[in-house]
Amino acid sequence: MEKISKKEILKFHGGGKLSILPKVHLKTKKDLSIAYTPGVAEVCKIVKNNISTAYDYTIKGNSVAVVTDGSAVLGLGDIGPEAALPVMEGKAILFKKFGGVDAYPICLATKNVKYIIQTVCAIAPGFGGINLEDISSPRCFIIEKCLKEKLNIPVFHDDQHGTAIVVLAGIINSLKLSGKKPDSVKTVINGAGAAGIAVAKILYRYGIKNISLCDRNGIICKSRKDGMNSAKTDILKILADNKPGTLADALQDADIFIGLSGPDIVSPEMVKKMKKNPIIFAMANPVPEIMPERAKKAGAFIIGTGRSDYPNQVNNLLAFPGIFRGALDARVKQITEEMKIESAKAIAGIIPEKSLNPNLVIPSPFDKNVASAVAEAVKKIARKK
Amino acid sequence: MEKISKKEILKFHGGGKLSILPKVHLKTKKDLSIAYTPGVAEVCKIVKNNISTAYDYTIKGNSVAVVTDGSAVLGLGDIGPEAALPVMEGKAILFKKFGGVDAYPICLATKNVKYIIQTVCAIAPGFGGINLEDISSPRCFIIEKCLKEKLNIPVFHDDQHGTAIVVLAGIINSLKLSGKKPDSVKTVINGAGAAGIAVAKILYRYGIKNISLCDRNGIICKSRKDGMNSAKTDILKILADNKPGTLADALQDADIFIGLSGPDIVSPEMVKKMKKNPIIFAMANPVPEIMPERAKKAGAFIIGTGRSDYPNQVNNLLAFPGIFRGALDARVKQITEEMKIESAKAIAGIIPEKSLNPNLVIPSPFDKNVASAVAEAVKKIARKK
Repeated sequence: MEKISKKEILKFHGGGKLSILPKVHLKTKKDLSIAYTPGVAEVCKIVKNNISTAYDYTIKGNSVAVVTDGSAVLGLGDIGPEAALPVMEGKAILFKKFGGVDAYPICLATKNVKYIIQTVCAIAPGFGGINLEDISSPRCFIIEKCLKEKLNIPVFHDDQHGTAIVVLAGIINSLKLSGKKPDSVKTVINGAGAAGIAVAKILYRYGIKNISLCDRNGIICKSRKDGMNSAKTDILKILADNKPGTLADALQDADIFIGLSGPDIVSPEMVKKMKKNPIIFAMANPVPEIMPERAKKAGAFIIGTGRSDYPNQVNNLLAFPGIFRGALDARVKQITEEMKIESAKAIAGIIPEKSLNPNLVIPSPFDKNVASAVAEAVKKIARKK
Repeated sequence: MEKISKKEILKFHGGGKLSILPKVHLKTKKDLSIAYTPGVAEVCKIVKNNISTAYDYTIKGNSVAVVTDGSAVLGLGDIGPEAALPVMEGKAILFKKFGGVDAYPICLATKNVKYIIQTVCAIAPGFGGINLEDISSPRCFIIEKCLKEKLNIPVFHDDQHGTAIVVLAGIINSLKLSGKKPDSVKTVINGAGAAGIAVAKILYRYGIKNISLCDRNGIICKSRKDGMNSAKTDILKILADNKPGTLADALQDADIFIGLSGPDIVSPEMVKKMKKNPIIFAMANPVPEIMPERAKKAGAFIIGTGRSDYPNQVNNLLAFPGIFRGALDARVKQITEEMKIESAKAIAGIIPEKSLNPNLVIPSPFDKNVASAVAEAVKKIARKK
């Protein structure tokens, strides 16, 4: 990848990356008396009498709060709300560019789960959706669950579901290409944080039932005591009934490896012990669980990473702009599991079957057709209700 | 004023009035890897190591949250957060157009004072300032005081201080024009809500020491028990030592009347009992405490209102964009009393002394020079520290 200088990066970010602009003209006294007092009172009265008209006459209908506590930002960890802001601004740009969504960063000065939930509930009236971002596991699960119960606007933790949707899209095309069947493949996920757990859930729901989940302590199973948490215990019910063991043990005869963990964790020997034509999604960033060249040499059939300089980049950008575009357009109260799976199918479907090949199972994040296809998928499910 | 149709108003507000746009280009893979991962990590690390650099590399340096609970919106009262949103959006437009400030509406789903304070503290890291708006009295005083103590960014309740600053500007010019002196005028304020109390405070601090404050129960004084609250009790210490009485009693021999109350409360007879050449700022909206024509006929020398169709419009728009422009540029932690008074002087000074006349003591809200003059006044005081 082209080396970018620190100076160039800082210049790019200088002064922040977002601007708030009026969508209306404000040139005359008359404009002012329509936009503000006294004219605006007419609009206020309409919304007061029917709160749902806020979607028609205010920013609510196209606004998403990008909410973080800065506790799990990129590979940087717990860097706090101010330091997380550049990432959230970047996210907001992507929301606009790919989904036409007005997203605003809300960086919280607390990591207390209850306080975060309260705060998001308090600010919710002005937003049409909440995108949770870079909140550490297992707190993110509780926060998302409570907010979904309390709010009547969609709440979506992108680190979980954005990643899960794009991984599923890649797996759908990989299965097509390899001739493997969802109900007969053995899948191993390494990394039991927000993304790993969400990937396990979506694959299971899609029909991939033989799933093993590992973390740094090895296979997550009923008899394990060390390094467990509420989210890991909870996910046991959909995992294969495994004995304790290492990642290498789990990978024996596996068809699919999905890495959401750390660098260089998978060796060529481990790949060689997998079934024939294994599918490897090694998404640790910037250094994958196994470098594509090594995986290929060890027999991998399809390789995806989180990097833009290799084929098959698993990039959340393929999901979140379209998900929220569809959710806002359809004014849904929740982004359902069915919407997520249909979104994954929509992403997978962007690549025509005849164009599928081991280097093309996931569309480019710059493919302009993806967001609208995802939005349509969400709206299609919304209409079915 | 030109009659504006409801249809025209609704069309103007349709879809909301704000758009969030990228300030940076995002066309190539390289742009993406600078704006977002991996490039953005460089910026995150710098901000983490020195939080104050958030002013340089994020939106914080130019962002203000316009925070309301929708409890005291325009003349509409407690209409709730969604219905308040059109007003807050309008405010955000004015912030941008006149101050170049990126303001974002935050409409809260609570009227609980403690919960509001907690919420604003939680979202503060991403903002360079907090503009409180349309929060009912006396809750607004407690909320502002606590937030000022807890936060290290400026907190400004515009209904109080914006109004107070512009009233003072008008009074400064009115005194010049009438030859009356601050330390010898008798001033009567009617309306002891957020704005009335803030006006009393700023006038007192400016040097106008003989101030009577009235509300619907008459003169606020030590012996009064009915209709008092913490804010009214607190303000007693700067008010003239009055006996109980009516607004008419208070106006006897007064030089200045400032109305922040309701329609048609002041009669021509009351004006006639004031000192010669009285100054009347009747700001109830849309119908003033006394209509300018009647006040004039009864002997008023200078008349200001809150309306755009009469001379001398007292409009907060003259204050808040410049106040926050200056506060953000100087990165001040507080907007001090001195900054407010200097801002009022700056607004007054926009009108050259030779141009002053009874129909021109307050500049037009569309005067492009006002915001920069106010910003300069704020920055001048900031530099003195």
